[in-house]
Amino acid sequence: MGLSAHLGGGGEFELIRRFIAEDGPMPHDVLIGPGDDAAVLEGGWVISTDMAVEDVHFRRSWLTDREIGYRAAAAALSDMAAMAANPVALLLSTAAPLGGAVDLEEINAGVRAMAATVGACVIGGDVSRSPGPLMLDVVALGRAGWPVQRDGAEPGDHVWVTGSLGASAAAVHIWQSGAEPTPELRARFAVPVPRVEAARCLVEQEVVDAMIDLSDGLAGDLAHIAAASGVEITIETDRVPVDDLVVEALGPDDALDLALHGGEDYELCFVTDPDVVDVGYFAERYGLRVTRVGTVAVGDGVWLRSADGTRTEASAGGFDHWPFEPDKHPSPEAA
Amino acid sequence: MGLSAHLGGGGEFELIRRFIAEDGPMPHDVLIGPGDDAAVLEGGWVISTDMAVEDVHFRRSWLTDREIGYRAAAAALSDMAAMAANPVALLLSTAAPLGGAVDLEEINAGVRAMAATVGACVIGGDVSRSPGPLMLDVVALGRAGWPVQRDGAEPGDHVWVTGSLGASAAAVHIWQSGAEPTPELRARFAVPVPRVEAARCLVEQEVVDAMIDLSDGLAGDLAHIAAASGVEITIETDRVPVDDLVVEALGPDDALDLALHGGEDYELCFVTDPDVVDVGYFAERYGLRVTRVGTVAVGDGVWLRSADGTRTEASAGGFDHWPFEPDKHPSPEAA
Repeated sequence: MGLSAHLGGGGEFELIRRFIAEDGPMPHDVLIGPGDDAAVLEGGWVISTDMAVEDVHFRRSWLTDREIGYRAAAAALSDMAAMAANPVALLLSTAAPLGGAVDLEEINAGVRAMAATVGACVIGGDVSRSPGPLMLDVVALGRAGWPVQRDGAEPGDHVWVTGSLGASAAAVHIWQSGAEPTPELRARFAVPVPRVEAARCLVEQEVVDAMIDLSDGLAGDLAHIAAASGVEITIETDRVPVDDLVVEALGPDDALDLALHGGEDYELCFVTDPDVVDVGYFAERYGLRVTRVGTVAVGDGVWLRSADGTRTEASAGGFDHWPFEPDKHPSPEAA
Repeated sequence: MGLSAHLGGGGEFELIRRFIAEDGPMPHDVLIGPGDDAAVLEGGWVISTDMAVEDVHFRRSWLTDREIGYRAAAAALSDMAAMAANPVALLLSTAAPLGGAVDLEEINAGVRAMAATVGACVIGGDVSRSPGPLMLDVVALGRAGWPVQRDGAEPGDHVWVTGSLGASAAAVHIWQSGAEPTPELRARFAVPVPRVEAARCLVEQEVVDAMIDLSDGLAGDLAHIAAASGVEITIETDRVPVDDLVVEALGPDDALDLALHGGEDYELCFVTDPDVVDVGYFAERYGLRVTRVGTVAVGDGVWLRSADGTRTEASAGGFDHWPFEPDKHPSPEAA
């Protein structure tokens, strides 16, 4: 949920992020309020909302209408995975330009197709015309017996990620440079997989102290865990599972940069006690690739340690590095 | 919730409305799915989502930023009233243009101020820049022991409304004609009151068979009840509680037209058995004005009967008559 979207113009939105995350007195039936991937309500209901705005989160020239819906729903459902919730339902709000440029039925079909992959369905929504860009807002609802939060990381813990990183941001990077990504890279942006099943496996093993989904890039999202848990996190950069496709397309340095700061991989990043994760077991039993990428210590912030031992502070927010900066990403009026 | 917003270009969106309202198999913990003012989840949670799009639902020249937030939250909470739910929490998604034209903190303050009037608070959200109009999506969450649906109207029942109708649409009408509404009329558009307390009173009396909030105008919203209940509804036009301010500003004919077709009054329209509502009791005990405006019969559709007995079919959707038609309501590019 919000607080971490690819905004461009990050500074202006910092205020509002803090404002939304403000913790006042909550009603008794709100178990977890603002500040995590999702809120949690009495009865174990988990709820999150995610916007997808044309020319901020995607371009219509990059995606089919069906993919626009599919991707927006995947992003929303990724918040359910981050809380280890089982998705139940979505609500879909769509503001679309008139005149047939957008096929709303295809957008809906994409949302429903994504929902169906995790056993969820669409139970409501809103629809309006838009005098400007196409905008979707997808509310995800799930249930969690033991929702996993961001604030459970402790000094000595290990930091892990699922899958490989950087491919979605690489596709955007290549589009932005005027080229076309390969179909494989494009698919990583267009039809992401929310890690609902992986979250279920991790929670089943009772090893996870804190978890988040990777929407801001590894460094940016770990900053949320570090801040929420009051700890320092060090990423060992040579351990980061950079996607092979990205290394091939852009070389190892840019690939690492996109893995750390690119965003929208929708993989899971989780924190455990040391030496409790059996990598081979997860691979064999669940077909799940997990990689240890760092450690937790007393302190604050997120640090990068390279193979030669050099240690630098990672910049605070992944979104500042996202290719969708305003200058590189003109609004439709200017385009 | 959606399916009934002031779109302009109604035809193009009919498909999507039907699409959203499609009833497939629902998960066991979704008690009421698409097609009503809100969905209902196990545990009595009621959830709805409402968009407010600049230059579709409001103009920035008409409202302060705080009022934009206040009004969007009121519209979302009105869906809670329509289901007789007690509001608990809101989620707020905002897509805003960069450059300081919009004060996001004021919008948030308005949302929170509205939420506070009904004892709710903001528990999450999302934020993005918008390359076009300001857009808000407000998710309302509440709880209902006995959620009231649209499908309980039966032949012989009476149809009622709370408060008086037409003032919000009249303010828009006056703005659109290039004039300024009086402060009183303006307030009816800018700071509407969701009838949460009224819904509570009505349900306490156990008299309500079906209910909806008035966002499309009386005729348009009764069409939803008539369709959901499989009945015919006749509005006695001389009984409609047209707002005095509107009669004064625009004369009785236009005032009636706006009450029937204007929308966004956010009063409640409800259906009861005949002769169970004690108007004086509601006025005395709850300070609540309720007016009988029509009757339910075997058949379908919504009909208007005037004092001289003339009977005509009311047009299907209030939104078609709303002043925000595309031709009268140019998009920012054209303005």
